[in-house]
Amino acid sequence: MADTLFYSPAIGQNSLLPEKESQHCVKVLRMREGDKLTVTDGKGFFYECILVQAHPKQCMVSIQNSIAKRKGWDYDLRVAFAPAKQTDRNEWFVEKAVEVGIDTVIPILCHYSERKEIKTERLEKIAVSAMKQSQQAFLPEIEKLKGFKDIISRPFNGKKCIAHCHDLPKVPLAQHYKKGENLLILIGPEGDFSQEEVEEAIAAGFEPVTLSESRLRTETACLVAVQTIHVINSL
Amino acid sequence: MADTLFYSPAIGQNSLLPEKESQHCVKVLRMREGDKLTVTDGKGFFYECILVQAHPKQCMVSIQNSIAKRKGWDYDLRVAFAPAKQTDRNEWFVEKAVEVGIDTVIPILCHYSERKEIKTERLEKIAVSAMKQSQQAFLPEIEKLKGFKDIISRPFNGKKCIAHCHDLPKVPLAQHYKKGENLLILIGPEGDFSQEEVEEAIAAGFEPVTLSESRLRTETACLVAVQTIHVINSL
Repeated sequence: MADTLFYSPAIGQNSLLPEKESQHCVKVLRMREGDKLTVTDGKGFFYECILVQAHPKQCMVSIQNSIAKRKGWDYDLRVAFAPAKQTDRNEWFVEKAVEVGIDTVIPILCHYSERKEIKTERLEKIAVSAMKQSQQAFLPEIEKLKGFKDIISRPFNGKKCIAHCHDLPKVPLAQHYKKGENLLILIGPEGDFSQEEVEEAIAAGFEPVTLSESRLRTETACLVAVQTIHVINSL
Repeated sequence: MADTLFYSPAIGQNSLLPEKESQHCVKVLRMREGDKLTVTDGKGFFYECILVQAHPKQCMVSIQNSIAKRKGWDYDLRVAFAPAKQTDRNEWFVEKAVEVGIDTVIPILCHYSERKEIKTERLEKIAVSAMKQSQQAFLPEIEKLKGFKDIISRPFNGKKCIAHCHDLPKVPLAQHYKKGENLLILIGPEGDFSQEEVEEAIAAGFEPVTLSESRLRTETACLVAVQTIHVINSL
């Protein structure tokens, strides 16, 4: 595979690259007609292509070969988190989660949320960039901001956990989770979930869990949860 | 324990807080004489104190009680890594590694290192801040930049691994590492270790390992290694 990966969600149907990718191809990498490039659709395929028209706004490619790339994990891994006040911390989590492997990221609004809104488009751009950089063919879904109650009442075919810091009974995630299970985990804001939120989640079937012996920042907790699941599945 | 933790490496012998901590105490938190505060020495102890002199440059405290805080892990975990070109990526790794738990961080200079120097003092400040934020009593050591050969020839009482991306035989870290073992792991620069470096490390007793199925950035690989070890030990 060529070292630089391009992203075009419609590459299976449309041989024109999006504007941003075309610009990167022609202006930044100075690729020329006849050059080879690899494009992913973010849905599990790599397309080996030849550049047939090096237009800075709309490159045209010819597909030579398509390769199904299996996802590096065979469970459904979703993190619903209350975005941190500092934007870069949320962006950091998305970048790292995509590198390490995640299916869905769901920003949620909680009682103690300091950040009440978030630019999902910006997180999507970061996810695309991290997917390309880590040479993957799956673009995780970044949902729009959801309410806490919306998330806990949503059906989910797998284990549901809530990580919190209250002095209530809870088990380490690594001991609760079993290899191969799908997981939806909720991570609270800087000020934690309210005790009422924890109780509502438990009533909705979420298991209260801990992630570490020390107090983790929101974005650290999110990534620790993701990596914990991958490690258990790799054993 | 009070919510804000202070750091004074000599608190066991000296009841004056360092200038930066004194300023934070008096100017930022506006603490007054008679207020309670918790100070750590970064060597495994919390000291419950009373503020007896609220001087903005040199607070004096009276120690009421000292509490030995055990480290959250009982193995020696060291990461030697080639710092990334972008400073914030290195700082990010140090912050996260301290939150999650690490003993020693060793910046190393490799054949393909894009960054040839690094301000250790800055990384130390970040480590202190992360230790306080995550309410821990252990400050990991941040070594000065070392040469690759210095690191591989150094004696280490535990497992030694090198993570690289070359197409050479290697095993997943999670399968190679055994619960309870000390670990020194080497993580290369953006351009990876040179093949010669990999061979030298193997000759010096390092096991070649992989950390993920996807291509990780240096700082992501560092944190993934740390968290992988903690997960295995928590099972």
